[in-house]
Amino acid sequence: MKVTLLAGGTGGAKLAHGFQRVLPPGDLTVIVNVADDAEPHGLLVCPDLDTIMYTLGGIADREQGWGVAGDTFAAVAQLTRYGAETWFRIGDADLATQVRRSHLMAGGASLTDATAALAAPLGVPTHLVPATNDRLRTHLMTDAGELDFQAYFVQRGQRDEVRAVRFEGAEAARPSPAALVALATAELAVIGPSNPIVSIGPILAVPGMREALLASPAPRIGVSGIVGGKALRGPADRMLTSLGHEPSALGVARLYEGLLDRFVIDEQDEALAPAIEALGMEVSVLPTVMRSDDDRASLARALLELGEGMLRG
Amino acid sequence: MKVTLLAGGTGGAKLAHGFQRVLPPGDLTVIVNVADDAEPHGLLVCPDLDTIMYTLGGIADREQGWGVAGDTFAAVAQLTRYGAETWFRIGDADLATQVRRSHLMAGGASLTDATAALAAPLGVPTHLVPATNDRLRTHLMTDAGELDFQAYFVQRGQRDEVRAVRFEGAEAARPSPAALVALATAELAVIGPSNPIVSIGPILAVPGMREALLASPAPRIGVSGIVGGKALRGPADRMLTSLGHEPSALGVARLYEGLLDRFVIDEQDEALAPAIEALGMEVSVLPTVMRSDDDRASLARALLELGEGMLRG
Repeated sequence: MKVTLLAGGTGGAKLAHGFQRVLPPGDLTVIVNVADDAEPHGLLVCPDLDTIMYTLGGIADREQGWGVAGDTFAAVAQLTRYGAETWFRIGDADLATQVRRSHLMAGGASLTDATAALAAPLGVPTHLVPATNDRLRTHLMTDAGELDFQAYFVQRGQRDEVRAVRFEGAEAARPSPAALVALATAELAVIGPSNPIVSIGPILAVPGMREALLASPAPRIGVSGIVGGKALRGPADRMLTSLGHEPSALGVARLYEGLLDRFVIDEQDEALAPAIEALGMEVSVLPTVMRSDDDRASLARALLELGEGMLRG
Repeated sequence: MKVTLLAGGTGGAKLAHGFQRVLPPGDLTVIVNVADDAEPHGLLVCPDLDTIMYTLGGIADREQGWGVAGDTFAAVAQLTRYGAETWFRIGDADLATQVRRSHLMAGGASLTDATAALAAPLGVPTHLVPATNDRLRTHLMTDAGELDFQAYFVQRGQRDEVRAVRFEGAEAARPSPAALVALATAELAVIGPSNPIVSIGPILAVPGMREALLASPAPRIGVSGIVGGKALRGPADRMLTSLGHEPSALGVARLYEGLLDRFVIDEQDEALAPAIEALGMEVSVLPTVMRSDDDRASLARALLELGEGMLRG
């Protein structure tokens, strides 16, 4: 079953890993958020693409949630000596990724091409596809002023309340051709348990992406990244609240209204099912918290079964 | 006494270090070869500038002769996984230098500016000045074809006989303004014990550099990097031979004919003094082999004394 997953960072990476474990090689495509990208030291860093690539390549630092397991930090120490801004800490092996990507792209490769050229040698059988090859950047309006995503997320440690969100470049961006193909040929389309505002939001903000998802022949299932009113990781719950949404699976479902056939919520949110169904989507209740590799595979398997049932139904 | 030293890699770095130890801060300027520069992974690497900067900053790997002491190699290992050419092994802290330099220059800094911005935070009191801010690259004609310098030096381990040398970009290159100032204001000008063909050669190949050295008010002293018919490090002796020069202090002196007031040879080459004097330069015999920091300072002090004597004389 050809699966196309829309995903941002850690939650999306875990579910992608689950799908990769249970699907034949090549049957999974992940359309990845790129609006977190930044250019420290003049190098193009793609945190979500990298987190998913490292996770699928088996070299992710699972404790930290970003970077390469066992990485060293000699380069960032030296960059600090040179007076460079280094609050965006890049490990040495991770820096190699950024150097290589930037070099490939300076030579004319698209971000899609560069991503494939990085992922293949890591043995990643999954197609990793940026939502767009064009420049797209999340800016957050906060009480501390407008911040770009990494300034908000890393430099200031998510301490600012987010009052509004803007995706710079969204008007001119086009979906990557590979993303459009993946949606058009999918047998199951999944919106992963990623932050709906700043991970899934920018993917859907690319003009044409929402339409391509709706035009997909595949059943469309979403998975809530909010469980029991809390984000499993990151600031999604606080961000939903400060932006006027309900910090719950229901609040997430409302953001996907009209886009999904089915929404998957965690067992502890079962009581929200009727309200979500009233939005015009089916609801499935599953264990969605992925603590182990087996949890990842189990959730992926359950989603495949749901998708098969929807195709038959 | 304001000293301006022309230098390439290790031998020049050692003498620069000796001068830095015995001169007041700021009195030394080193005009450095840049024709060994290369662009692995799209980053501008300046091996001679870096070796001298690391040496003067006290962080050089003295065993290896290049790079940062105690450096790690996680980035190059990861780059190798990505299929990048990594025969030019860059350590992680060393990579930070290349990333920072490339970033500064992409932002409009000249190589002179970028070098100063790197050296100052390392506490280097010496002015490090590239011979030119323009592109200049050594190519070596060998039996294996034409090789760029790092392909000859690192990738192929100096195993090819050099039949001819070409400095790409030399016609259009201009001396860096800082190099011209350093020569015009010098009280002692020294050509260091670097490879005369591929370290000093490209500096002097920049149009206007030779004239600026000759127009300098300072006495001009050269130091032979060939001692007892052998290069202390590197392929200078073999290169002199294959290019039809004598692999000796005399052979080196001939290359500097008309350019120097005085040539310093090692004690073991004393017998060559009359032949060198016949070229029209004074000869001084000194211990020139620098094994320790004290050796470096002693040679520098001896050169300063020679220079003072020449100024008075």
